[in-house]
Amino acid sequence: MTFNIQHTDRLSSARAGIMQTDHGPIETPIFMPVGTQGTVKGIHQSELEHVIKAQIILGNTYHLYLRPGTDILQKAGGLHKFIAWDKPMLTDSGGYQVYSLKGMRKITEDGVKFQSHVDGSKHFFSPESVMDIQRIIGADIVMAFDECTPYPCEYKYAKNSMYMTHRWLARCIYRMDNTDPIYGLHQTFSPIVQGSVYPDLRKESAEFIASQDQEMNAIGGLSVGEPHEDMYAMTELVCGILPSDKPRYLMGVGLPENILESIALGIDMFDCVLPSRNARHGILYTKDGLINIKNAKWQDDFSPIDIESTAPTSRIHTKAYLRHLFKVEELLAGQIATLHNLSFFLWLVSESRRRIIDGTFYAWKNSMVKSVSQRL
Amino acid sequence: MTFNIQHTDRLSSARAGIMQTDHGPIETPIFMPVGTQGTVKGIHQSELEHVIKAQIILGNTYHLYLRPGTDILQKAGGLHKFIAWDKPMLTDSGGYQVYSLKGMRKITEDGVKFQSHVDGSKHFFSPESVMDIQRIIGADIVMAFDECTPYPCEYKYAKNSMYMTHRWLARCIYRMDNTDPIYGLHQTFSPIVQGSVYPDLRKESAEFIASQDQEMNAIGGLSVGEPHEDMYAMTELVCGILPSDKPRYLMGVGLPENILESIALGIDMFDCVLPSRNARHGILYTKDGLINIKNAKWQDDFSPIDIESTAPTSRIHTKAYLRHLFKVEELLAGQIATLHNLSFFLWLVSESRRRIIDGTFYAWKNSMVKSVSQRL
Repeated sequence: MTFNIQHTDRLSSARAGIMQTDHGPIETPIFMPVGTQGTVKGIHQSELEHVIKAQIILGNTYHLYLRPGTDILQKAGGLHKFIAWDKPMLTDSGGYQVYSLKGMRKITEDGVKFQSHVDGSKHFFSPESVMDIQRIIGADIVMAFDECTPYPCEYKYAKNSMYMTHRWLARCIYRMDNTDPIYGLHQTFSPIVQGSVYPDLRKESAEFIASQDQEMNAIGGLSVGEPHEDMYAMTELVCGILPSDKPRYLMGVGLPENILESIALGIDMFDCVLPSRNARHGILYTKDGLINIKNAKWQDDFSPIDIESTAPTSRIHTKAYLRHLFKVEELLAGQIATLHNLSFFLWLVSESRRRIIDGTFYAWKNSMVKSVSQRL
Repeated sequence: MTFNIQHTDRLSSARAGIMQTDHGPIETPIFMPVGTQGTVKGIHQSELEHVIKAQIILGNTYHLYLRPGTDILQKAGGLHKFIAWDKPMLTDSGGYQVYSLKGMRKITEDGVKFQSHVDGSKHFFSPESVMDIQRIIGADIVMAFDECTPYPCEYKYAKNSMYMTHRWLARCIYRMDNTDPIYGLHQTFSPIVQGSVYPDLRKESAEFIASQDQEMNAIGGLSVGEPHEDMYAMTELVCGILPSDKPRYLMGVGLPENILESIALGIDMFDCVLPSRNARHGILYTKDGLINIKNAKWQDDFSPIDIESTAPTSRIHTKAYLRHLFKVEELLAGQIATLHNLSFFLWLVSESRRRIIDGTFYAWKNSMVKSVSQRL
């Protein structure tokens, strides 16, 4: 994998780059739609490519390990072939999902024992086994197996957890270095900075991660409930330490305003379930802020959902129609809203990129942050 | 509305024709996807047009009257505008839905008192009010308000019901003749033959309906559980009486083999919820018969869902992937399966049409009836 920075903003740390993977290029900054179980909910792969213009999507190791399972995925020739997606893909390590199984998992130095949320069956994830599973899934980018601390998190817990994440990282890297991609295509490995909202821990973690000299780096444990100022402070601190010539991925972030501010801090990659999850509940993102399309005020509003959307369905269909679809609980409601929100997020990052290149990013970002934060 | 028969089969009563409506042409025989609440479940309007190649879709008076309601529909300028569908549309009168509300409705000579399935609110449908609602919806073809008898049905009930349907028909026609389309475009009215599975009643009903000299005619009360032989016998009897120069619509039918046999008996139009409803439960229709894609036998079958399908998703995606999507209850499962089934039904009628015109329909129909009846 190569990463070339084409332009760096004069007024911020924002940069426009291109990552080159064996499944093609990724123009950064980029937002990655989440396809947990081998599908971005309610969206066809052709719509991901041609409507949303996704350049890379996410899969989830925990979910894919349970269903369809590694046996089916390996027989299929990997996740790309299984779901018919020929562009770049990243797999989350499943750490976050496993830790979410409160009362159904036990963390030790070895790894994590857990019970499947599907059938209660018992399983064990270690840094090694998670790397092996990600080899079988075959994504272009595979994530380290880490512990994502919650918010709030006691200093002592955050510190011990961070050290364990670092020890697990060594085991992940060793496993990756001693195994080969199964399908012949290169897999980039990404370590993850932790340390909760404690500056000294974030600094120590970022320095440790930077010293590993991997092809890219990620920041985890943010967007878990902490104030936005903490998110930005930690991101700025960590971006100042992680090498500037490698992609930086801020995991699980977030709101449009978070993405814009984080781009300005030097982040290149984002993912978040919110635009797709909120879409299925009728929450739409626009340049002028959030809309709850289920509100009665839209019932006879026959203007387009969003005349400026890059999604044709948002230009063709009216707010009144989309509201009706939600009120009668039709599948098309979530489909139209998901296309809308993901198209908006991809527009947001591509417009950021365009403006970084032409030198108009910073002022636009400041006005856009105000605009997208509104609640209509 | 005009109807021109281009070709009549030598070996059967099948015919290929073109209906011309103010929203464009309909090539017959045709299958009409069901869009009960202003959407064909899980399918974008662009997919209806370009993938499934639907030429006309159905709306439902009962459901649309309840939600979004006639006020919203009239403000929108009718259902076509409301849902952004510019091709022909037909509305079912809602009679079937109202009668399905067992214990929540009362039928009298005046009409039907019923309670909404949504909130229990009380409503009254009469032949006149249903015509008025269909004027507001604004479909190109509007159906008479009739009583659809169940199967089995006592002779006496079927006879009395048929007479009431005939009396209601007179009221529907009077109302249609004394009102105008609201949006300036012509609305074709279709009366409905009833009479259950009793040949003398069907004959009497068909003669009465034929005598009304409307632009098209429909056959109701079949595909409600009666043996296929009864369905075919009634259809043949009625087709022999209804004028041959007007479109004949067999309501709610049905299986691919029913459609093929009924085309051979002289039917021009079909609708059925089964291809879309079954799709959402993993039942796929193919030229070689029915597939339950959830069966374990497909879990590692990496062949295309149907390499001959007119739906790209059925050619691109594998059976194993579609099975996975159903097992993890993903929205995309129903989307891919619905596109598949509706594309198959539209292919079935367009291929019938092509073969009626080139003279190869009858032998093909006989072999295809055997083939599509298989259970894989």
